[in-house]
Amino acid sequence: MRIGILTAGGDCPGINATIRGVCKTAISYYGMEVYGIHNGFRGLLDDDVIQLTENSLGGLLTMGGTVLGTSRVKPFRKDRGFSLSDSRPAALLKTIHDHGLECLVCIGGNGTQNTAAMLAKAGVNVVMIPKTIDNDVFGTDISFGFDSAVSIATEAIDRLHSTASSHQRVMVIEVMGHKAGWIALHSGMAGGGDIILIPELPFNIHNIGDVIINRLKKGKPYSIVVVAEGIPTFNGKKAAQYIAEEIEYETGFETRETVLGYIQRGGSPTAFDRTLATRMGGHATELIAQKQFGRMVALRGSEIVSVPLSEVAGKLKLVTADNDLIIQGKRMGVCFG
Amino acid sequence: MRIGILTAGGDCPGINATIRGVCKTAISYYGMEVYGIHNGFRGLLDDDVIQLTENSLGGLLTMGGTVLGTSRVKPFRKDRGFSLSDSRPAALLKTIHDHGLECLVCIGGNGTQNTAAMLAKAGVNVVMIPKTIDNDVFGTDISFGFDSAVSIATEAIDRLHSTASSHQRVMVIEVMGHKAGWIALHSGMAGGGDIILIPELPFNIHNIGDVIINRLKKGKPYSIVVVAEGIPTFNGKKAAQYIAEEIEYETGFETRETVLGYIQRGGSPTAFDRTLATRMGGHATELIAQKQFGRMVALRGSEIVSVPLSEVAGKLKLVTADNDLIIQGKRMGVCFG
Amino acid sequence: MRIGILTAGGDCPGINATIRGVCKTAISYYGMEVYGIHNGFRGLLDDDVIQLTENSLGGLLTMGGTVLGTSRVKPFRKDRGFSLSDSRPAALLKTIHDHGLECLVCIGGNGTQNTAAMLAKAGVNVVMIPKTIDNDVFGTDISFGFDSAVSIATEAIDRLHSTASSHQRVMVIEVMGHKAGWIALHSGMAGGGDIILIPELPFNIHNIGDVIINRLKKGKPYSIVVVAEGIPTFNGKKAAQYIAEEIEYETGFETRETVLGYIQRGGSPTAFDRTLATRMGGHATELIAQKQFGRMVALRGSEIVSVPLSEVAGKLKLVTADNDLIIQGKRMGVCFG
Amino acid sequence: MRIGILTAGGDCPGINATIRGVCKTAISYYGMEVYGIHNGFRGLLDDDVIQLTENSLGGLLTMGGTVLGTSRVKPFRKDRGFSLSDSRPAALLKTIHDHGLECLVCIGGNGTQNTAAMLAKAGVNVVMIPKTIDNDVFGTDISFGFDSAVSIATEAIDRLHSTASSHQRVMVIEVMGHKAGWIALHSGMAGGGDIILIPELPFNIHNIGDVIINRLKKGKPYSIVVVAEGIPTFNGKKAAQYIAEEIEYETGFETRETVLGYIQRGGSPTAFDRTLATRMGGHATELIAQKQFGRMVALRGSEIVSVPLSEVAGKLKLVTADNDLIIQGKRMGVCFG
Repeated sequence: MRIGILTAGGDCPGINATIRGVCKTAISYYGMEVYGIHNGFRGLLDDDVIQLTENSLGGLLTMGGTVLGTSRVKPFRKDRGFSLSDSRPAALLKTIHDHGLECLVCIGGNGTQNTAAMLAKAGVNVVMIPKTIDNDVFGTDISFGFDSAVSIATEAIDRLHSTASSHQRVMVIEVMGHKAGWIALHSGMAGGGDIILIPELPFNIHNIGDVIINRLKKGKPYSIVVVAEGIPTFNGKKAAQYIAEEIEYETGFETRETVLGYIQRGGSPTAFDRTLATRMGGHATELIAQKQFGRMVALRGSEIVSVPLSEVAGKLKLVTADNDLIIQGKRMGVCFG
Repeated sequence: MRIGILTAGGDCPGINATIRGVCKTAISYYGMEVYGIHNGFRGLLDDDVIQLTENSLGGLLTMGGTVLGTSRVKPFRKDRGFSLSDSRPAALLKTIHDHGLECLVCIGGNGTQNTAAMLAKAGVNVVMIPKTIDNDVFGTDISFGFDSAVSIATEAIDRLHSTASSHQRVMVIEVMGHKAGWIALHSGMAGGGDIILIPELPFNIHNIGDVIINRLKKGKPYSIVVVAEGIPTFNGKKAAQYIAEEIEYETGFETRETVLGYIQRGGSPTAFDRTLATRMGGHATELIAQKQFGRMVALRGSEIVSVPLSEVAGKLKLVTADNDLIIQGKRMGVCFG
Repeated sequence: MRIGILTAGGDCPGINATIRGVCKTAISYYGMEVYGIHNGFRGLLDDDVIQLTENSLGGLLTMGGTVLGTSRVKPFRKDRGFSLSDSRPAALLKTIHDHGLECLVCIGGNGTQNTAAMLAKAGVNVVMIPKTIDNDVFGTDISFGFDSAVSIATEAIDRLHSTASSHQRVMVIEVMGHKAGWIALHSGMAGGGDIILIPELPFNIHNIGDVIINRLKKGKPYSIVVVAEGIPTFNGKKAAQYIAEEIEYETGFETRETVLGYIQRGGSPTAFDRTLATRMGGHATELIAQKQFGRMVALRGSEIVSVPLSEVAGKLKLVTADNDLIIQGKRMGVCFG
Repeated sequence: MRIGILTAGGDCPGINATIRGVCKTAISYYGMEVYGIHNGFRGLLDDDVIQLTENSLGGLLTMGGTVLGTSRVKPFRKDRGFSLSDSRPAALLKTIHDHGLECLVCIGGNGTQNTAAMLAKAGVNVVMIPKTIDNDVFGTDISFGFDSAVSIATEAIDRLHSTASSHQRVMVIEVMGHKAGWIALHSGMAGGGDIILIPELPFNIHNIGDVIINRLKKGKPYSIVVVAEGIPTFNGKKAAQYIAEEIEYETGFETRETVLGYIQRGGSPTAFDRTLATRMGGHATELIAQKQFGRMVALRGSEIVSVPLSEVAGKLKLVTADNDLIIQGKRMGVCFG
């Protein structure tokens, strides 16, 4: 049996561990041939494909990024679905056919979920493995990459505490999360943030100012504000800049901003992400061996399971107000807006 | 309402975050009074109790160990249960009564689980929060402390790889886990161990030697062996020493051992453990507010729930051979015995 | 003997370790009394002074920031020097006199160096300890805080490598350094930067574009650019933004920027900075005991020495083109402009 | 010009960065050919030599261990010096001659220093680069690898503090250093050790017991003891075990030991070690280009210089009682014996 594997969308820690997990079980245990497709779906359009062997896998467990490369190329026009009258789907199918790939393992986020679901509808055997630092892929409790991103963000927040209190400042830190505030919520709580703003919950800047001033009255003339990049702002301002300016205006406090940026998605995965990625990779191969296609690997509790792509594609997993970390956080005095 | 809180058994990262979680919600949200009992159950015997205030909580989120101190003092004789004819139970009840503690929050592992269950039977209102780096507390998917311990162990294994390959040696690393091999299993898989030995699974030293020699034949003249401290050995030898000597005898390979020891349980908790500990602390207070006593807080999937102490006390959560990390690990060529 | 101690200017890792070093030797060994002045020179103006005891020092060795607080308040008008007809110098002297402080230990950077030198001229006994992440204090080989900042910046650059190569992007990272490029130079070399831009050396954007395109031709379609915040830009743009836009214009490469910001100056100091800070603190006390005032503690080679403040104040330690790290870097293919 | 490079003795963080530094400057800047010799001097005996190209160098800057492999094979019999009537020197010279190596770069510690000096005497062009975590190579202020080892040891000591105070225990940690106590001294001071024992200074166990008991009297019922592996013990006991048993006997305190072991020499080098290693590698190539043979690269203050091998070989750099870190440490209450 011959399978292909590609990684699409933004990179994140653990992708290489997943590739390794798929390849090791596929090649040594099931005797499959595995072909790596470069740069996501672009590699299928360009026929940029190489065979992977056990020797390709050295060091992958701990390495950040993706050795296969990635791109955000979307092979389908949303309005047309998988229409063979478009040149892209045709080129893509040709590459799959030419290399005799009996199944395509797609490692990606929400965009990849949609493409994979469309490919499945068009008759391609696909298995998807969810990957995103944002943790917003629907259908799995956690995606690998999330724990690493939260760890990096938490360490950054830890560092800001000492400088905030030394200078009696408000420090605003912006972490990733366009639509979902999971990273802000988890790193904010783990880092002892006083105010945490996420795209899912509305916020009131006067309220935030009050929280900061109340902290001053309790002898704490400094605050840590954790904001997700996707919160609404004015005039196209970035989240941290906007909130910092508003806080300074409201409170008169010296306020400084930090945009954490790309370091959240780089570097070696945490131990948690490495085992999760490894298990998901292995499980994907098992699905293929059992010819269970059109499915996404998922974590449910302590178990690795799979769900039909058709049930999860197009949906987003967002933070809701009844999330217990938010409820507990509020009771502990954290302001969420 | 006035409650007491104590920490018993071996310390682990996240205890202080839990204490903070209990106190913040209890004091600020529910208006309870919280009394800290020093050094586990010994503090109840010695009447070593102080009131905790919000000001006691600064820095606790990130701090390792337990500010309340801990001990392994067991207040009951196992053969008698909670018999008031023993002096210890009487002293213990007197302290609880004298301070007017309406509930006792016990943060601990398996031993604490048993004591808490016995106290509950004797009519004391208890809520237990599981804490152990070993992850062997029955009734919860994960205990806080485990992720931190696995992270430290994984980082250590990462470090051994380069020295193993540079010197063409076998490196044996012993991690914690008397009865349960969770740390060895997870850090071994996350660190790319070639051989992982845990107390739950039998091993054959000839088999291990063969694996090492087969790696040599494939051009890999070095191996990483991760062993839990609780695997069976001869002549009272420690796990790492025993396995290292046997491997050297079987294979002739230069073999070196590392015993990771106490650094696995010290230091600041990972972001994962901080949020888990915080949620569990908050949930414990909620149980108290709802007068749901005799229960243990637990993680099930993504949810914090609680289970009756009577259902979980006396049981141990062990690794089983059908654990998917073991199954996947075997398929990827890892030897488990 | 009674001495005062203050910390001024931007905070950095190691200040607390220095305070501890001064206090431990002063109090326990020399039997001095030590008074801590809050918020830098502002505390002298406001008479915000408390006695420090050995019990104040717990945890200081590893703690970031400064427990004394800091400010950028400058007690003198530059144009007048130490003129008692100004109210500030008078208030300052009064506080020193009222508390009977026989010597003032000033922990700070270049601004503090100037103020300390002026105080010395005005007859106040001062001993200065240099502290700056920028490493630009003249007269010492290295200041504590620098190694910590370089470590954090290097770790960030490490993380960018995997995402740069996965996405085939140019990543521009801005690190601290207004006038001096030490952090950019050291973290850039330690992190394997391809292009390093510092305020001291002119750069040519065409040249930088060529380097990036040449890397592409050699099969490396990604580059890491490390820039100090103080490099010249146009239109008030920040360093990273400016360089990223120029590179994208010159090369057509997808370019992303990261501004590392305040996390460079927060958190626990590295082991190197802890011992350096401790030694400098101890040495400062020794100078006081020997009544050697008007001096700055300094590292020269492996030795802690001291230099007259009058010889070093007003000077800046900058990177020069003949720095051996630059010379070696060029030979290894790194572009410095 | 064609040169050879080998790494001998125990591995340490930064060796690969040095290899990269030598090769990058030698190949791209000076146009030399570089041959890598596998497994230290054993590779010269076995003629195990490969050409290194720029493509061999990817990832070396951050990678622990040595890609060339290492061994402790000593090519000379000490009693005979470089006698060609022995087979080993002859084989070694033949390999150097057969490959046309005009200079041999030897990266190693004290043993390598001796061998390199002997080779130089025998007419081989050698340049030596000092490498050791122990920091005991004579003639250089610091060797790369030392800062990394101290960082790892300090982090481990940090972790022991919380568990020591939670359990009211004495924690004894053994760090590397057979003859020289540099790692114990620096990590002990950076980690806030209460007692630091090194091979160079005698210690009295009663004295140590008194220190621990005095801490108890001051309300600190726990202590951290850092010992170098090379301190004298009885009955062949390891340093930590011996000291732990003695302390328990003297004080009655529950005492636990940790042997840090091989993790001190593994893993990615610190930023400090990466730049030091890079500079030393580049400087070695410069010496070759200038035909300055028989020299060892060295750090003196902020400068990279070189010293004649004949002046430094056979000597050891040890801690002396007048080391300022020891003097300051004593004044701060640290016990050194």
